[in-house]
Amino acid sequence: MSRIVSSQGPKTAPKPNLVTAAPSFRLYYFNIKARGEVIRLIFHAVGAKFDDVRVEDSTGWAKLKTDMPLRTLPTLEFDGMQLGQTMSIARYLALEFGLRGQGVYEQALVDSAAETADDLLSDFLEVVFIDRNSKKAEAKRNFVEHILPQTLQQLDRYQKQHSSEYGYIVGNGLTFADLAVYNVLDQILTSGMIELGYYQRFRYPTELRKRIMTHGGLMRYLNNRPRTKI
Amino acid sequence: MSRIVSSQGPKTAPKPNLVTAAPSFRLYYFNIKARGEVIRLIFHAVGAKFDDVRVEDSTGWAKLKTDMPLRTLPTLEFDGMQLGQTMSIARYLALEFGLRGQGVYEQALVDSAAETADDLLSDFLEVVFIDRNSKKAEAKRNFVEHILPQTLQQLDRYQKQHSSEYGYIVGNGLTFADLAVYNVLDQILTSGMIELGYYQRFRYPTELRKRIMTHGGLMRYLNNRPRTKI
Repeated sequence: MSRIVSSQGPKTAPKPNLVTAAPSFRLYYFNIKARGEVIRLIFHAVGAKFDDVRVEDSTGWAKLKTDMPLRTLPTLEFDGMQLGQTMSIARYLALEFGLRGQGVYEQALVDSAAETADDLLSDFLEVVFIDRNSKKAEAKRNFVEHILPQTLQQLDRYQKQHSSEYGYIVGNGLTFADLAVYNVLDQILTSGMIELGYYQRFRYPTELRKRIMTHGGLMRYLNNRPRTKI
Repeated sequence: MSRIVSSQGPKTAPKPNLVTAAPSFRLYYFNIKARGEVIRLIFHAVGAKFDDVRVEDSTGWAKLKTDMPLRTLPTLEFDGMQLGQTMSIARYLALEFGLRGQGVYEQALVDSAAETADDLLSDFLEVVFIDRNSKKAEAKRNFVEHILPQTLQQLDRYQKQHSSEYGYIVGNGLTFADLAVYNVLDQILTSGMIELGYYQRFRYPTELRKRIMTHGGLMRYLNNRPRTKI
């Protein structure tokens, strides 16, 4: 949450304007799903307005880069502040929007589940970005045969232990951990590495998918979002 | 924070015992620094007692593994609960111990800085665990010549923007982000990849090191901790 430019105001956090107290959010990310998509899902899950800035090419990114606090995307701007790091942005917004869990214990459990989803996303993207075909085939097999089913088993166990509601990983309502899990499983599926039936062996992913498919705000976005390769 | 065994009590979070309200913490990790060390530093920074269980070999780990909620270490046990994922544990403890920053904005900034330190640790450990000598040399050079100095520059800028106190990255006191940064820079240094002088080009790491070196609790631990390869 670095200040964007000095013209944005004084150095202390601005006091909320009582007339238009809701902050105006602007998310900068590339026009792909990859890391940034979980943040978009959080906004759409709660119906919060945000400016979904999609940087299209390397020229655009080169211009933007030095304005970003950690020289990375995604970056979130709001209240004249800037915040970098995907999962830090996700945790901040989840807290603002009531998707962080109830109380410190549950919030820690949600946090830990979201990290597990993020680890899986890192493993998936590592395979996606391998450019040598011979290495890619081996990495893909290891991911689909070992990393993915092990993680899904872990998540199933975790959900059984921490929620009595099929389809929510912790507690009795949607949290950003559910969105993080949905996001990575959706990206793996649309990459073609597996078919939809793959997930049906696992209860939580299957039930989570049903929850998402009946969520109006998310479905509107998922049906209309830009089609991107990654 | 899965329940350890059913004999630990009822399924709801146990009520604090007013006589011995402080929870009893047990940290499971391997006898190395790597990922788990930042959690040990948090305990020592605030002088909180914990059981520092160091799993010594693969036999010990094989026995323990199925009891861990995500089948991973580090895992923290407390109040009959279990919590996995290094940074989730760190954030939980930092909140409990007052090392999380003040207010939601500052906490988000601290969170983001800690994630940046954790990314650097991941990059460092990736180089450490490469087993082919030819690939390792190239990866080490890339890390020392590009990744490390770029991250240190980012952290220096970040600190300048968010703290007026040399040696603290956000706000005017120690947070777990400072401990995460100290931890990774210390591990890089003791690996022999660089010499101490390397850090002197960067203000924040230099000042942070001074802060840590004059912190009684941390120095006692740092001078007496087990000497490990990683």
